[in-house]
Amino acid sequence: MSGQGVGLTDHQRLDWLRLIRSDNVGPRTFRDLVNNFGGARAALAALPRLARRGGASGTHICTVDEAAAELKAARARGIELVALGEPDNPARLQTIDDAPPLIAVRGNREILNRPLVAIVGSRNASAAGMKFADCMARDLGAAGYGIVSGLARGIDAAAHRASRDSGTVAVLAGGHERIYPSDHVALLEELLAHGAAVSEMPLAWEPRARDFPRRNRLISGLSVGVVIVEAARRSGSLITARMAGEQGREVFAVPGSPLDPRAEGTNGLLKQGATLVTEAADVIAVLEPILGRGFDVPAAEPEHEAPLDHESGEDERSRIVSLLGPSPTSIDDLVRLSATSPAVVRTVLLELELAGRLERHGGALVSLL
Amino acid sequence: MSGQGVGLTDHQRLDWLRLIRSDNVGPRTFRDLVNNFGGARAALAALPRLARRGGASGTHICTVDEAAAELKAARARGIELVALGEPDNPARLQTIDDAPPLIAVRGNREILNRPLVAIVGSRNASAAGMKFADCMARDLGAAGYGIVSGLARGIDAAAHRASRDSGTVAVLAGGHERIYPSDHVALLEELLAHGAAVSEMPLAWEPRARDFPRRNRLISGLSVGVVIVEAARRSGSLITARMAGEQGREVFAVPGSPLDPRAEGTNGLLKQGATLVTEAADVIAVLEPILGRGFDVPAAEPEHEAPLDHESGEDERSRIVSLLGPSPTSIDDLVRLSATSPAVVRTVLLELELAGRLERHGGALVSLL
Repeated sequence: MSGQGVGLTDHQRLDWLRLIRSDNVGPRTFRDLVNNFGGARAALAALPRLARRGGASGTHICTVDEAAAELKAARARGIELVALGEPDNPARLQTIDDAPPLIAVRGNREILNRPLVAIVGSRNASAAGMKFADCMARDLGAAGYGIVSGLARGIDAAAHRASRDSGTVAVLAGGHERIYPSDHVALLEELLAHGAAVSEMPLAWEPRARDFPRRNRLISGLSVGVVIVEAARRSGSLITARMAGEQGREVFAVPGSPLDPRAEGTNGLLKQGATLVTEAADVIAVLEPILGRGFDVPAAEPEHEAPLDHESGEDERSRIVSLLGPSPTSIDDLVRLSATSPAVVRTVLLELELAGRLERHGGALVSLL
Repeated sequence: MSGQGVGLTDHQRLDWLRLIRSDNVGPRTFRDLVNNFGGARAALAALPRLARRGGASGTHICTVDEAAAELKAARARGIELVALGEPDNPARLQTIDDAPPLIAVRGNREILNRPLVAIVGSRNASAAGMKFADCMARDLGAAGYGIVSGLARGIDAAAHRASRDSGTVAVLAGGHERIYPSDHVALLEELLAHGAAVSEMPLAWEPRARDFPRRNRLISGLSVGVVIVEAARRSGSLITARMAGEQGREVFAVPGSPLDPRAEGTNGLLKQGATLVTEAADVIAVLEPILGRGFDVPAAEPEHEAPLDHESGEDERSRIVSLLGPSPTSIDDLVRLSATSPAVVRTVLLELELAGRLERHGGALVSLL
């Protein structure tokens, strides 16, 4: 299951890091840019022009010095920046739509290419929930699975602790130098002997509220299946469950009493079709056939799309922008209503995005910010 | 949903009661006998001869006096013996394979023809389980459902109490004069203003262990669906759930923590495909479309089968008996291996059954006792 790709050169890695660390470039935009300009270097060269055309003035492009400093600081701490397609990049994570171009990995990188199961749940967990997470993590660990979680209080911490010796992966919402919660720094250090910590953010990135849902896609993306242990309504664990579903991962939920608010979320997942589990054997019974089947890693370069760098006329651009507003609009509608080509629409949207003026929603919907 | 049948005459009711109260006559044998001899009176006349041919000497046939005394005692207590096919016999109960020929009903008989839902569970219930049963019974009662249960301690009692005013049905394992547990006599009396008590046993029948599973088929048989609230492994509630499944009733289970032994049974049912419910609305959402569909009550007289009263030769009988043993054997095999007709095999088996020498298993399997 180990990745089959080849490594980047130091120069390439620097270019990749500069591109993903530049303003308004997320994993999807990164992929579009690299595919359309033929590489990160060419995309970096085009960025200022694209952002300007999108209406931005002060878009920051990460400099060579900044990127080199991050790489140096990471290496000094034993952290590797592993790129998509490199052998150490976990194959399963690369199958998700918005896989990070680079992940910063500390600890034992090998665990990332073992079969992984995520165990997540309430921070405010009950004693029973903590005990359950402990048993589940221990038994799955004994069966050869690595345990992925989010280093949060409660269920996450219980799952990490119980799989400390068998191998566990903590996925961070912030950078490696900003562990959250800070009183889990010691726990994290303990995990690294057999396990790993993963972040897609700069080393010193202080996690904001919105970084947690973003991080949750990596928890599910790394895993074959996700076990939700105790989750209140509208909790972060349910976001992980939703992302797992969207990524085609198995969603397992632990039942609880209808009178326990900490079981509302998991019982809700079960009503929606999640698999009910009461012990590790239930999880293993579902995952074993899946692991036997293997899965497809997308080719490093996706299918060729029309080049993005269409020099669009002012008329076309203003027609497209005038069709956009705060309500999400479909890209197909934009093409039809603007009477321009899909390539021009995509170029204008990319420019707006790089200028920080566009938001992308699911289902090929976009809106102006 | 009320039954469309016509009433029995007093003489017919006496004959039916005599036949079902005779040794070794259960609901299935009753049906076979009545169908094959054309009525209870003729079956009663044939009984001694059939039992003797089966090898019994002292098979007791319920006398006219005994049956008349039971009818009189029942009426004196306001208990009606309602026969299959009579208007007061609940239509849904008549759809089960082994519907009792007569049920003894006390209280408000009308409730039996309302849509009924069973709520059953542990005797040794938790406070949370009791509270859940209370809410579920109350909300289903408010939605127009009658609540069926078994008058046991714990969940059953909570369900009955909460539906005392909206209407509840207690199904007894013994006779109406042997309420079990005896400290629920007062509870039962309270239920009868709006609800009913049902038994298929003689008034003074002391319930034995084996009568409880037998009673459970009536709990599910009366109901459109069965809600299992807290059940340990191998508990009586799981028997009710199994019977509900065999009878085509909806099986609902309430989830619980994997660490709570009282949830082992319900979580197990959920793994086997029972519908997870956390509130009455979940039950109603499934049952409403089912109630809209209606259902078929089998005709009072099933399809004609070859008459049973074949005078079998001694050769044939001993050939069939020699093929039987303590291991279950299929009736088809008996026909084939004995080289006799199906009618002869069925006659010999009925004779053995009436002599108390035969046990019938599921799937047309029989064994000698």
